[in-house]
Amino acid sequence: MVTKNQIKLVTSLQQKKYRSEHGLFVVEGKKMVNELLEVGLVPFKLFVDNSHELENFNKAELVSASELKQMSSLSTPNGILGVFHMRSTEKNENLDWTVALDAVRDPGNLGTIIRLCDWFGIKQLICSLDTVDCYNPKVLQATMGSIARVDVIYVDLPNYLKTMDYPIYGAFMDGENVYQKKLPEKGVLVMGNEANGISEEISELITERIAIPQFGEVTAESLNVATATAILLNEVRRNQAIQK
Amino acid sequence: MVTKNQIKLVTSLQQKKYRSEHGLFVVEGKKMVNELLEVGLVPFKLFVDNSHELENFNKAELVSASELKQMSSLSTPNGILGVFHMRSTEKNENLDWTVALDAVRDPGNLGTIIRLCDWFGIKQLICSLDTVDCYNPKVLQATMGSIARVDVIYVDLPNYLKTMDYPIYGAFMDGENVYQKKLPEKGVLVMGNEANGISEEISELITERIAIPQFGEVTAESLNVATATAILLNEVRRNQAIQK
Repeated sequence: MVTKNQIKLVTSLQQKKYRSEHGLFVVEGKKMVNELLEVGLVPFKLFVDNSHELENFNKAELVSASELKQMSSLSTPNGILGVFHMRSTEKNENLDWTVALDAVRDPGNLGTIIRLCDWFGIKQLICSLDTVDCYNPKVLQATMGSIARVDVIYVDLPNYLKTMDYPIYGAFMDGENVYQKKLPEKGVLVMGNEANGISEEISELITERIAIPQFGEVTAESLNVATATAILLNEVRRNQAIQK
Repeated sequence: MVTKNQIKLVTSLQQKKYRSEHGLFVVEGKKMVNELLEVGLVPFKLFVDNSHELENFNKAELVSASELKQMSSLSTPNGILGVFHMRSTEKNENLDWTVALDAVRDPGNLGTIIRLCDWFGIKQLICSLDTVDCYNPKVLQATMGSIARVDVIYVDLPNYLKTMDYPIYGAFMDGENVYQKKLPEKGVLVMGNEANGISEEISELITERIAIPQFGEVTAESLNVATATAILLNEVRRNQAIQK
């Protein structure tokens, strides 16, 4: 039996303010819930609308389809909704490469970048404070479960970068051709905002400006930030793989 | 003065059936309209809702904001709507690399792939007949104008591939590590459907099965098709750039 107050709490978590206040976030669908449980995230509540699922999910509560719909952010809820405690994530300095995002605003882009970090074995994604919240439902959906394996950490990005003693790479339209760079074993890759790229303040902290060469007629358009991140992470890893 | 029949024609073009019947498609926004005009596409009609724009667009017709809204597929129309004749595109065999899509269904993915082809100088994108229509408004929006520079051609894909005398590369989860392949000067890169990958019929025509290596914990997820295309086109071009 779900109470009105619980429904109110769950729907409030669609807003970042309440997610931060309660330290809770919502995911929907069996696959996402299972992936979070597998990596050991702690569920606060699990709601299912079908009694068969009670066998699969220990401690889940049975609700009616209409109650689930009230709590869901989807137009067609898909049978299970999980409220999880946010992970406490600490910065880990013992990693090879880190990705840092400067004001990435589109949830789909952040989700795709988290999924890419997972693919390329980047354990830690550093985000400026004005990057979109990684617990935003659209971000979570786009990660396809990778949120469970990548630590997303929000920091004052200029201060963070100032403490780095590794090279800091940044993607710029007019940077040096990445094919001609020998990428090191350890570094930070900074990717900028969709419309404005890397901000001026952060630009000053970049030690290596890189670019993906363009082969078509040169037009003003840049690549989308998630696409560019895909290509540059591939460059980082292929460099390491080839050297071994 | 726009007639009711014209409004009816323009809104009908939101459906593929009517786009094919009339050989016409719609784009919205100054940037898109300008890019299509620049590459020489022929406008059938241009509608603007502000008389200042009449100076910029030769032969544009002034309509009221409410008439523009009736014709637009956007919730907030952005001042200019162009109806263009589709380009007649012919297969060109004199190219270095071609990308071929097998049943890519998501408009955002197709749009992103067209934009990538433009970036990497791939002049021709071959699509199976069940790939989403490139004149779908969501595809056009995602191309960011690149539709003007890349020929998108719909063909019976198995028949098309049977006539190829270049190597045909296909992306598979269990393909060979692309870092270890020496990619040739000419070839076809086949990318598959979002959920099912490359179909069995097409698989039999692939001469080289390739994969992007995974560096994280190995999970079942594959990369999104647009992201994977980005990485593989980068591999094709870096190979050529390094050899020169």
